[in-house]
Amino acid sequence: MQLDFQKSGGLVPAIIQDERTGDVLMLGFMNASALSETQRTGEVVFFSRSRNKLWKKGESSGHVLKVREVRVDCDSDALLVRVEPIGPGVCHEGYRSCFFRSMDGDGNAAVIAERVFDPEKIYGAGKSR
Amino acid sequence: MQLDFQKSGGLVPAIIQDERTGDVLMLGFMNASALSETQRTGEVVFFSRSRNKLWKKGESSGHVLKVREVRVDCDSDALLVRVEPIGPGVCHEGYRSCFFRSMDGDGNAAVIAERVFDPEKIYGAGKSR
Repeated sequence: MQLDFQKSGGLVPAIIQDERTGDVLMLGFMNASALSETQRTGEVVFFSRSRNKLWKKGESSGHVLKVREVRVDCDSDALLVRVEPIGPGVCHEGYRSCFFRSMDGDGNAAVIAERVFDPEKIYGAGKSR
Repeated sequence: MQLDFQKSGGLVPAIIQDERTGDVLMLGFMNASALSETQRTGEVVFFSRSRNKLWKKGESSGHVLKVREVRVDCDSDALLVRVEPIGPGVCHEGYRSCFFRSMDGDGNAAVIAERVFDPEKIYGAGKSR
């Protein structure tokens, strides 16, 4: 099958879901090369829009995402990657999920999760995620 | 808080998750206006990139998505909308989730879900989703 990479400028959004708990952990983007590397290695590789290059999740922290299943949506323009996350959390701010804040109807955000690791110790200064 | 709508050209990806089951149902995009309408009405409104206008999910099918919680990620550039879906499914192809296909390492997709409604009866010809 062909994915539609054109709608988002050569990228598809990739939702990362913990296969065991069903929790949504993060959202990244993949280009064709990132998807190919993800499939080849069995660990999630994104395309970083801010750094404009491939970004293996966990390359410095060791918090890699082991791919258990890749699902594709009806329009072939979004991926759902079901993973086994290695390590305590995926978020560079020290949370298990990047979606650690809840937003109310007025746009105010509140933290709803516990920090599970100290990001300074894992990432330090200047390290990638 | 301010969402970062700039990274995706005025849009943020919005993951739709069934609050009760944890299943990821679909991914859409919202601009500031779509998010505002979603919050005001308590039902999910996307921005349709193909039609270039606001798109209330379920506007013709009745399969609306009742918003139970909106979460925002660490970079404030993605939303996780936890919903109660009304109706048998969200996908215009008749499935409960748009992610009804699994893709193997060679890029071959296989349907992994049961069809739960007849899309012709719900959407007919030319109706929006």
